[in-house]
Amino acid sequence: MSSISSKEIQIERAKTTKIDQVDFNNIDFGRIFTDHMFVCDFKDGKWQTPKIMPYQPMTIDPSARVFHYGQAVFEGMKAYKDEAGKVWLFRPEENHARINKSAARLAIPEFPKDYFFNGLHTLLNLDKDWVKPGMGNSLYIRPFVIATEPAISASPASEYRFMIICSPAKAYYSGKVRVLFAEKFSRSADGGVGFAKAAGNYAAQFHPTNLAKEQGYQQVVWTDANTHEYLEEAGTMNVFFRVNDTLITAPTNDRILDGITRKSIIQLAKDNHIDVEVRRVSVKEIKDAARNGSLKEIFGAGTAAVISPISAFEHAEEVFELPNIEDSFASIFKEKLLNIQHNLSEDLHNWRQEVK
Amino acid sequence: MSSISSKEIQIERAKTTKIDQVDFNNIDFGRIFTDHMFVCDFKDGKWQTPKIMPYQPMTIDPSARVFHYGQAVFEGMKAYKDEAGKVWLFRPEENHARINKSAARLAIPEFPKDYFFNGLHTLLNLDKDWVKPGMGNSLYIRPFVIATEPAISASPASEYRFMIICSPAKAYYSGKVRVLFAEKFSRSADGGVGFAKAAGNYAAQFHPTNLAKEQGYQQVVWTDANTHEYLEEAGTMNVFFRVNDTLITAPTNDRILDGITRKSIIQLAKDNHIDVEVRRVSVKEIKDAARNGSLKEIFGAGTAAVISPISAFEHAEEVFELPNIEDSFASIFKEKLLNIQHNLSEDLHNWRQEVK
Ligand SMILES: Cc1ncc(COP(=O)(O)O)c(C=O)c1O
Ligand SMILES: Cc1ncc(COP(=O)(O)O)c(C=O)c1O
Repeated sequence: MSSISSKEIQIERAKTTKIDQVDFNNIDFGRIFTDHMFVCDFKDGKWQTPKIMPYQPMTIDPSARVFHYGQAVFEGMKAYKDEAGKVWLFRPEENHARINKSAARLAIPEFPKDYFFNGLHTLLNLDKDWVKPGMGNSLYIRPFVIATEPAISASPASEYRFMIICSPAKAYYSGKVRVLFAEKFSRSADGGVGFAKAAGNYAAQFHPTNLAKEQGYQQVVWTDANTHEYLEEAGTMNVFFRVNDTLITAPTNDRILDGITRKSIIQLAKDNHIDVEVRRVSVKEIKDAARNGSLKEIFGAGTAAVISPISAFEHAEEVFELPNIEDSFASIFKEKLLNIQHNLSEDLHNWRQEVK
Repeated sequence: MSSISSKEIQIERAKTTKIDQVDFNNIDFGRIFTDHMFVCDFKDGKWQTPKIMPYQPMTIDPSARVFHYGQAVFEGMKAYKDEAGKVWLFRPEENHARINKSAARLAIPEFPKDYFFNGLHTLLNLDKDWVKPGMGNSLYIRPFVIATEPAISASPASEYRFMIICSPAKAYYSGKVRVLFAEKFSRSADGGVGFAKAAGNYAAQFHPTNLAKEQGYQQVVWTDANTHEYLEEAGTMNVFFRVNDTLITAPTNDRILDGITRKSIIQLAKDNHIDVEVRRVSVKEIKDAARNGSLKEIFGAGTAAVISPISAFEHAEEVFELPNIEDSFASIFKEKLLNIQHNLSEDLHNWRQEVK
């Protein structure tokens, strides 16, 4: 792979900053973007010189393949500011590895590691005032790649654009999340692209999720497409079940995203001597556990929401309300994760990376 | 639904035409576009005044949801010119109905019928010189909708753009098509979006198709994701099998696109007293039929390639070469379809629509 140092990134600074117009206490997720963006085009068989420029709309042909064939992958990560004003990333190597895994499945060229990290650090340095200190505040970072080649034959593009855009995210308490276990719709197939952060996986969930919302549920927990008997993951979160004092989560496979929050929780559980089982979880056992009182918690885990406790689920027209628990695993893991992310606790596994 | 007459479309004509620069005998599919395009934006809960303007790149925010979540659907249709210079569409009502079915599955607002047809006819009238007469020549028409709202939360957009772009297509003989029956990868899940012309369905096929190409096969014939025992469809074509004198094709379901060419062939088979069975087709029976000589033909059917005879298939590392047949069903149906499309034969089922 080609190599590039931060110096070789072409930088055009924004003439003014938009930061003063932002009310950081009232932020709607994903609608406000920082002053700069990172852009790198692929053409003639290679990634061209990367650029950082003022955040702005771009010009693209209506025939660009991304519009027609969904050839696009993305990542989601966060930067955190500690009390001393240092900016930290959480396991960013994982995001780089994953975007390339996603890219390979969608026949998109991989993005070189040095381009990724030099771009990311240079961009975050320019926009570091946008990372607000304080527990739960963060800057959400969205690297993505789209097929830009102007041609509508159904085949992989020869031109792509890799970008990083950033959006400030507020510490939020999203309230009680009620979920529906999927019985008819499904998110992904064996041998499909469910394990990838492929753009098309998300739009496919919007309609079933809208139907769930009409019934009073915020999210769908997807089940396997073949039998709908096994629980897989939610729209943008992996899912954990606590039965008595054991934590259970589905194994990853080609239908399920290998979440970084998920694998961090599994590690933290081990570190803290909490029993954790990575195995198939059936709808039936979770319903039985809910009935006999051994189901203590369900929570979702993902970068955007960190940990999202689930208060109720419905399956086959039966509603199960979960108990309100003190010292829940959800709150324990959330605190542990946030403390590591915000440089407030020891980082046993070298998960933090300082932005320099 | 709102109503609009052709008069209300805002038209900005191209100052010059690009048509003289085009070598119509050497056209690479989907890379050249006509002088105009149709554009209609959805915002504030409704479709705005449609426009026709010179074909041109557009300006779009990097956070537009289409780039991140693949919220996009499309159609593919063709216009044909007869000897008298009249321009014809083939079953366009089906394309309109299908884009709305696709849109509903992706939580995209439906596009009103009168907007669709007024836009299409007005656009084709402006660009009618781009439709070349002669058997097999056509203008490929690509209506599509993309989520344009600049927001990266994983939920349906509130702003969309519907467009129609057109690209001249040459009569082509694509040569022998060799296919691989899928054994590991799959195209879509039960309860998924396979039946929709959703952008993401196509990118998901690129990598497995690349692997097939490396083995000398141009296309993959997808099998059901659960068992890989039943044959479903190819990347952009439905598939027909001829065993002795019976034509067999898989039934449509939520994994398979309900192709207009497919349903036209089924009707033409009935009209011509050819036995046609719409039922599940197993890999095993097709291999058995190939072995005992009763498998006479396999062909793909879709708007772009019309009918594409398949000369060989591979499954489980076994290659089956198909015989060269005179008076093949493929050639019979191709001729019948093209004759109807080009206004050279009677149109029993009112499939043609004149562009006025
Ligand atoms: C489908 C899906 N599952 C799970 C996750 C959680 O992954 P991570 O913890 O890496 O953010 C995400 C995304 O963030 C996702 O999109
Ligand atoms: C997946 C798929 N199957 C089949 C077809 C054939 O459909 P039609 O005959 O309507 O063009 C298409 C598209 O054109 C397609 O994209």
